[in-house]
Amino acid sequence: MHCVKGKGMVFELRQIGIVRSVLKNRADCPFQESENAPEATIEMDGRYEEALEGLIPGNEILVLTWLHQADRSRLKVHPRGNRENPVKGVFATRSPDRPNPIGFHRTRIIAFDRPFRIRVDALEVIDMTPVIDIKPVI
Amino acid sequence: MHCVKGKGMVFELRQIGIVRSVLKNRADCPFQESENAPEATIEMDGRYEEALEGLIPGNEILVLTWLHQADRSRLKVHPRGNRENPVKGVFATRSPDRPNPIGFHRTRIIAFDRPFRIRVDALEVIDMTPVIDIKPVI
Repeated sequence: MHCVKGKGMVFELRQIGIVRSVLKNRADCPFQESENAPEATIEMDGRYEEALEGLIPGNEILVLTWLHQADRSRLKVHPRGNRENPVKGVFATRSPDRPNPIGFHRTRIIAFDRPFRIRVDALEVIDMTPVIDIKPVI
Repeated sequence: MHCVKGKGMVFELRQIGIVRSVLKNRADCPFQESENAPEATIEMDGRYEEALEGLIPGNEILVLTWLHQADRSRLKVHPRGNRENPVKGVFATRSPDRPNPIGFHRTRIIAFDRPFRIRVDALEVIDMTPVIDIKPVI
């Protein structure tokens, strides 16, 4: 961690994998996973192979992503992108536009296609979005 | 975002606030919020004031933290720190030791003591832990 002038403390996140999806841009995204998100694949970085041990098909997981297309300077938004909704602070919304655009997504492991390729159920994430963590649902 | 030799892609997280708690070190922490975690206060960085608009006492929120005492090099752990539990990959556990030590914690806003001081219900987070995001529970 270190201190950057005008930004305060900063920390370094490492990409551990990447999402492959038929969703190619933000306009393709439904607003919540429940609204018919497609299956997707997480291609893991091979250096994190050991960290996957113990995960099996059927497990419910939380996938944390880095929403690389987000606008990090936005502090207020119209919820759900609808201009008829009064503006709110981004911490009172699930907007991807926020100071640290971390997405998190509950899904289920369908299969390991290859050791580092995890096929998962409904995932509302754009193709090529970096993955930063996987946690089991408890 | 940029690429660091030997680490792949990295992204820069910004601290938006800090947790103040009676929990002073990892040994003080219960293992899940449900196990009697104490109330705590989130002291926000004033530059993110606008981003809080719309949050009110009673709201359920997710607090994302940067677990600054974590060991980022650990890929396998004994779950819950108990050596009798067989080792598992960190992505199959909720261990704070993981490549990107992001904690997330469901809690409830009790009150805004001052505009930037948010008093929250049970929070299993060590004093002085950086806060990186707040999201409403939906």
